[in-house]
Amino acid sequence: MGEFELIARHFAQQASAQTAPALRLGIGDDAAILTPTPGHELVISTDMLVEGRHFFADVDSQTLGHKALAVNLSDMAAMGAQPLGFTLALALPSPDEHWLAGFSRGLFSLATAHSCALIGGDTTRGPLNLCLTVFGEVPAGKALRRSGARAGDDIYISGTIGEARLALASRLGEPWALAARELITESEFSRMQARLDMPSPRLSVGTGLRGWAHSAIDLSDGLGGDLMHILQASGVGAEIAVDALPAADGLKHLTVGQKRQCQIDGGDDYELLFTAPVAHREAIAALAKRCSIALTVIGRVTDEAGLVRWLDAQGEPVGLVGRSFDHFAQRP
Amino acid sequence: MGEFELIARHFAQQASAQTAPALRLGIGDDAAILTPTPGHELVISTDMLVEGRHFFADVDSQTLGHKALAVNLSDMAAMGAQPLGFTLALALPSPDEHWLAGFSRGLFSLATAHSCALIGGDTTRGPLNLCLTVFGEVPAGKALRRSGARAGDDIYISGTIGEARLALASRLGEPWALAARELITESEFSRMQARLDMPSPRLSVGTGLRGWAHSAIDLSDGLGGDLMHILQASGVGAEIAVDALPAADGLKHLTVGQKRQCQIDGGDDYELLFTAPVAHREAIAALAKRCSIALTVIGRVTDEAGLVRWLDAQGEPVGLVGRSFDHFAQRP
Repeated sequence: MGEFELIARHFAQQASAQTAPALRLGIGDDAAILTPTPGHELVISTDMLVEGRHFFADVDSQTLGHKALAVNLSDMAAMGAQPLGFTLALALPSPDEHWLAGFSRGLFSLATAHSCALIGGDTTRGPLNLCLTVFGEVPAGKALRRSGARAGDDIYISGTIGEARLALASRLGEPWALAARELITESEFSRMQARLDMPSPRLSVGTGLRGWAHSAIDLSDGLGGDLMHILQASGVGAEIAVDALPAADGLKHLTVGQKRQCQIDGGDDYELLFTAPVAHREAIAALAKRCSIALTVIGRVTDEAGLVRWLDAQGEPVGLVGRSFDHFAQRP
Repeated sequence: MGEFELIARHFAQQASAQTAPALRLGIGDDAAILTPTPGHELVISTDMLVEGRHFFADVDSQTLGHKALAVNLSDMAAMGAQPLGFTLALALPSPDEHWLAGFSRGLFSLATAHSCALIGGDTTRGPLNLCLTVFGEVPAGKALRRSGARAGDDIYISGTIGEARLALASRLGEPWALAARELITESEFSRMQARLDMPSPRLSVGTGLRGWAHSAIDLSDGLGGDLMHILQASGVGAEIAVDALPAADGLKHLTVGQKRQCQIDGGDDYELLFTAPVAHREAIAALAKRCSIALTVIGRVTDEAGLVRWLDAQGEPVGLVGRSFDHFAQRP
């Protein structure tokens, strides 16, 4: 038996210990078989992660196993879908048992927590590359799309945003982040790193929003860019109260400009951005309580298609510069 | 817009021209949505192809686009599944428009022929790597598995086998193949190369076998190894009439030993290997006629678990040597 067959067997054994009600046939045949719940639609998302581009070569493999699945589960959350299972294709330069043990620990720990079974895959020799495809289900017609936002909707964010960007900047040695780093306690910094490395897909929020939210997306590229995806798909605009953006405590060490940059231009937050009619405020407050996650109104949808107004606490336009900002219109 | 976003758009435009009845939401949201036919199960297969390992660096990209999808569709055929759609994740060292145009031509041409829509994907910079995940459906409980073979079943192969191996050996410059190459006409050689580069997934055979075949697998690694997968999954053995193996005309230039090697040990045939009760011979002959593909009985399933007897026309054991042969028992 070749070394890559051994790897496949290693994953298959762990997979067989998982329970997944929808899984009819798992690893070991020409294909896997899933039985979605009758009356439900299947939701599918795929992501490829390449060393040096999506993760650092020296990243801890347990962290990588977690994050590779987490970012795909975050897509399920953004659709309001319940995860069913996933496939994993893995190219490795050479099998390293220590690396693999960590990777599969991170992967299966998150998968098991969400009853999302590894149902199939492929392992091969090659430059390090991970490709995951995740399957979930939603009751027919109930998926949360990007295209449903309507003028007058509240705009919400789950949890807090910005710390993942600060952790990344610190890791990249960006001078402003290194300066801030001196003010940040060890425990604050650990939490920031966890935000970057071990994101929690907001699945309970996503499924809970079915029937209440008009549109949703997950924050992977940053609020500025991801908000624009909703606005373009829905043909609407937005007003955002920049100072109302929910910030984790660690950002208090930044200047106002740096903080805004982290929150608006930073990626990797994996929180949900969604819109919902004002009439559903109570239902969404109840959902926040049920999920123990803050769901904060950060602005409202307007009928000015494609236009975002970033406003400060006095309702004055905020000047923004940064990576994403050339992507969207900014009129005073 | 970045160059990789342009690529994604290129594929999305081609995808939107496809028709796929099951596709509710395609490229452009956080995930795609499929609606399988009520009463059906979802069949899922994934494959990762790495340059230098699964294809030559200088392979024609149109050919690669075809083959990347064909090998996954072949898995659908082996399950008796009807394809619905697929995702494509693509890492490229740098975007090359000529390469991409060829690749997508090969890919979409085959996809369209089988009403299999591109429903989602990912493009990124990195060492050349393709990861496809294909989705199909079968009526509940009707999938063809590896595990259903029973003693007494006929063993069948679709089409002919062996030419892909000869084409590969010729391309690799193996001396015996170069010697044979001198006897092979240009048109024979073109056909052999097409067998290697442009396999035809046997989808109509696969769906036609539902209810008739007890087990099935597609021939990707070679008859020897793939037969063993059925035998192990089913807990049975097999007798194979080696001289009854359906050979394409091009193999006539080989010695008997070389021919057997190509047919038993060679991979990349992407024909179906299946077992069916003797009572279904007429039904299977009718299916062969309907699909215009030979379905040839090559032996029978025995109750000697895990044992393969390779027999010549006189019923005498055939001595075999080669890559796969150490994987399975060979008793005289």
